Amino acid sequence: MFSITPSSRLRTSPFFEATVAEGVCAMTTYNLMLMPTSYGNPEEEYWRLINGVSMWDVAVERQVQLKGPDAGRLAQILAPRDLSRCKVGQGKYVPLCNHRGVLINDPILLKRADDLYWLSIADSNIWFWAEAIARERGLRVEISEPDVSPLAVQGPKAEAVVASIFGDWVRELKYFWFREAAVSGIPVVVARSGWSKQGGFEIYLMDGSRGTALWNIVKEAGQAHGIGPGNPNWCERVESGLVAYGGDTDGETNPFEVRMGRYVDLDVPDDTIGIGALRRIASEGPRRHQLGVVLDGAEPFATGFSWSDIEKDGRKIGDLTNCTWSYRMRRNIGFALVATAARPGDEVLVRRGAVPVKGTLCELPFL
Amino acid sequence: MFSITPSSRLRTSPFFEATVAEGVCAMTTYNLMLMPTSYGNPEEEYWRLINGVSMWDVAVERQVQLKGPDAGRLAQILAPRDLSRCKVGQGKYVPLCNHRGVLINDPILLKRADDLYWLSIADSNIWFWAEAIARERGLRVEISEPDVSPLAVQGPKAEAVVASIFGDWVRELKYFWFREAAVSGIPVVVARSGWSKQGGFEIYLMDGSRGTALWNIVKEAGQAHGIGPGNPNWCERVESGLVAYGGDTDGETNPFEVRMGRYVDLDVPDDTIGIGALRRIASEGPRRHQLGVVLDGAEPFATGFSWSDIEKDGRKIGDLTNCTWSYRMRRNIGFALVATAARPGDEVLVRRGAVPVKGTLCELPFL
Repeated sequence: MFSITPSSRLRTSPFFEATVAEGVCAMTTYNLMLMPTSYGNPEEEYWRLINGVSMWDVAVERQVQLKGPDAGRLAQILAPRDLSRCKVGQGKYVPLCNHRGVLINDPILLKRADDLYWLSIADSNIWFWAEAIARERGLRVEISEPDVSPLAVQGPKAEAVVASIFGDWVRELKYFWFREAAVSGIPVVVARSGWSKQGGFEIYLMDGSRGTALWNIVKEAGQAHGIGPGNPNWCERVESGLVAYGGDTDGETNPFEVRMGRYVDLDVPDDTIGIGALRRIASEGPRRHQLGVVLDGAEPFATGFSWSDIEKDGRKIGDLTNCTWSYRMRRNIGFALVATAARPGDEVLVRRGAVPVKGTLCELPFL
Repeated sequence: MFSITPSSRLRTSPFFEATVAEGVCAMTTYNLMLMPTSYGNPEEEYWRLINGVSMWDVAVERQVQLKGPDAGRLAQILAPRDLSRCKVGQGKYVPLCNHRGVLINDPILLKRADDLYWLSIADSNIWFWAEAIARERGLRVEISEPDVSPLAVQGPKAEAVVASIFGDWVRELKYFWFREAAVSGIPVVVARSGWSKQGGFEIYLMDGSRGTALWNIVKEAGQAHGIGPGNPNWCERVESGLVAYGGDTDGETNPFEVRMGRYVDLDVPDDTIGIGALRRIASEGPRRHQLGVVLDGAEPFATGFSWSDIEKDGRKIGDLTNCTWSYRMRRNIGFALVATAARPGDEVLVRRGAVPVKGTLCELPFL
């Protein structure tokens, strides 16, 4: 274990002081900010998400704001998914690709107004990308990073908590839809979304000076439901088959390789970046695909950095892109990004640590 | 202090195993990789750099490779500095700006061949930026991240160490110039460069599988000179006035604000990105400038994340963008990014921690 050295290059979240007060002890960095990753008891944090309700500082999900008369046009140029019927108040999960069809991020797009979009991004610099495209194409749109920081409330009891704060209208929100609201004078956007499959909401704080206040409002409202601090949960997201851009992808990964093909619309306009390459890949078929792998043995492995080679019959067929102990399956599980010839049921060898480990490929999600 | 949670989203360096063997205990993340920041004794690591020789894993200084017939043209489009007389084997420090003249990185450009350039980058995603510009302008150039990882050897005794490995020709290398070489069959590029003012070299490892081997060769060669592990040294770089992109800059910083005006050539071709904005800023003068600040008190402060407000006569005039204890000055010092009306000698108040601290502005560098 290494401590993370303070630096002004890495920013803190508006919820930083609140998470320190909660006892955060481990962090990662994401979009050049600190994100809490543990409060000291990973298993308890996991079961709280599965059975109750958990609150997460996910301010690192920054917004790339597109504002101006060409905002919608730029959004469609950036995203190979049909946005023509997207309504104000609606969000959509959109893979972003470069001109070669390589995935460069997978944000939630929020259409806040006809001339105002947010891309709530994963961990890569889409401000530079969007600015380059907008300026090179002469579009009338400003790119910026607004003062907006999501706080996630996730788990089966999340709806009860969020409804108790904002009202029963949140129960009617459809998945990825959102609405502006306020609590104690704090301006927010409430969306039904979040990086888990346990259900819940993301409350987009729109005033960074009110982070502790919002945290405490959610904490207090959640007391009756046993709320506690957590984080985008590595175990749950692997069990649920959620892809981590940058973790499960590399510099050559296209959406079809990582089960995102259903979010690509091949009939978007021809000036959409990467659509030519994506049409070709869709027609020829991708060279790799993403499966699960269940590793042999019933003791948790330590989590590591970087990928591990996956071999079959003595030859490398791909990579293990993550690995975690599943509290529900009582096995070490992970994602395999492997040649399309590899199939569920195949037995493989994972080159992980000093002694290679046997495993079996399977469909995703695990649960 | 927080521990950093392992994740496949954060890659390790080819020197990772070697640095673990040396006892690395603190890290930062940079270009989505881990970089060692301490081996447990910061003051000893500092004096080793000032008086002897230190070796640093700076693999995080990744290369954005531009390759193809239009590589030179793209380099000049990206960099508002005249590259027309740059020779093969020569490096240049180049600010990169967006279309508004805002600094987006400050790499060393290495001209490896007429059709091959490396941008050895600071901590922001220039692959996406360069790819967007190249594709939108229809240039014949491929953008990639080659298997290249710098190892820095810095300090007054660095030349003796590097010459003992590669030969006396390294003594003739001019600042930022470089040459291809090999040691024990390991392909490298040796450059006279490095993020300190104590002199030294960066050895660009061109085979990631040989990281430990190269580390040990340098370590052995340095034994006679008391070499030891270190890292881009926060204290020395602040004393020396070296700017950290992303640490000392924000989303509106232009090169003139942070003492990089001498690296901007206003007569570069009109299709250079941002040159119109930079000519206007040069003519009107920037609104902020970068000075030093010496804080009152003779006890080290803890280093923090994020910036601190700087006030004068009760009004905010700018930000403290870094702060460190200077072992040579025996004072807490930092950089001030402040309104141009603020001048050296001005007394200011820094809003840092619970009790504001007084300080005095000064010219940079400190030493």
